[in-house]
Amino acid sequence: MRLYNSNLAPNPRRVRIFLAEKGLSLPTVDVDLGRLEQKSAVFSALNPFQAVPALELDDGTIIAESIAICRYFEELHPDPPLFGVGPLERATVEMWQRRLELSLFFPVAQAFRHSHPAMKAMESPQIKEWAEANKPRALAAMARVDEALSDRPFIAGERFTVADITGLVALDFTRSARIAIPEELARLKRWREALAGRPSAKA
Amino acid sequence: MRLYNSNLAPNPRRVRIFLAEKGLSLPTVDVDLGRLEQKSAVFSALNPFQAVPALELDDGTIIAESIAICRYFEELHPDPPLFGVGPLERATVEMWQRRLELSLFFPVAQAFRHSHPAMKAMESPQIKEWAEANKPRALAAMARVDEALSDRPFIAGERFTVADITGLVALDFTRSARIAIPEELARLKRWREALAGRPSAKA
Repeated sequence: MRLYNSNLAPNPRRVRIFLAEKGLSLPTVDVDLGRLEQKSAVFSALNPFQAVPALELDDGTIIAESIAICRYFEELHPDPPLFGVGPLERATVEMWQRRLELSLFFPVAQAFRHSHPAMKAMESPQIKEWAEANKPRALAAMARVDEALSDRPFIAGERFTVADITGLVALDFTRSARIAIPEELARLKRWREALAGRPSAKA
Repeated sequence: MRLYNSNLAPNPRRVRIFLAEKGLSLPTVDVDLGRLEQKSAVFSALNPFQAVPALELDDGTIIAESIAICRYFEELHPDPPLFGVGPLERATVEMWQRRLELSLFFPVAQAFRHSHPAMKAMESPQIKEWAEANKPRALAAMARVDEALSDRPFIAGERFTVADITGLVALDFTRSARIAIPEELARLKRWREALAGRPSAKA
């Protein structure tokens, strides 16, 4: 089993943090995004959707998509549970994972991809107006997350989950997107610091 | 229990189809998206992320996000399984649900939201260049899905799943986005017709 990885991109980091929280480690194969290796014929044969991460099982089966890879390991190694336990908690974790992904991570990524010179080849056409339109959306999501954190340590409740991973990766990615996290969001800041302080954050 | 719904938007349709496939029905409350009711103070108190669908449980707990709502019902009513059974199938369903959502449904939705006059108030600024940039992405995803369907009836394998629901809703939404599905994608067409012919598609 091996993981197609890039240390430059935020999505593989989600999987690396998840694996570290599970106490698992995997051999990795680096995909050179700078040279658009994810669009090469060899890699496209593995993942026609041309993105990392991708997990290759011993029989050659490919599981692509960060959250699908995480769920695979959750099913194989349920402890500690990172997708919740029981119907309501599982739905709540999924809700927050998606809110953080769709309302925070994606706008941050769009702001980066449509403004950074290094993304010119990958994101064509690069649309500066779209980059700018995503910044207030990311900030609005941060304010909502800050509000939600008023009654709990982690975004989906008392327990660290995959939703927190998406949140940390999104917040760390704001630097590349040149989005400043507002200082007054004290709960967001406390949460980010707690997540960044876990050993998994270095994965 | 009740579902905040809109018959105009594609996301609530995903939940309605899912419930129909499970043989479940729920009282619904219509949210008037034409009047931006999802951004009203009353609705924002229920879902600060201002989107439908949202599920309200009897104790007032809210589960937002289509796929989180679907997963809640999957956990409560596992048969028929629509998220897969066992680690590999569950990961595969999640992979395809996400590929169809991120590579097909979202580009179709962006093409619609950034071009249609009815979306001017909801999508501000409306960026025509971004609408156009999404059309070739949606078409590329359709070609990949067509290819994947060469060895199986449903997108994640032998079984109908939530990934097929996302695919059908995305394909049906191409009309609003003014994206023509290429006639030569025969497997995509066969799949869409099979999905559209299920009673749940009318939900």
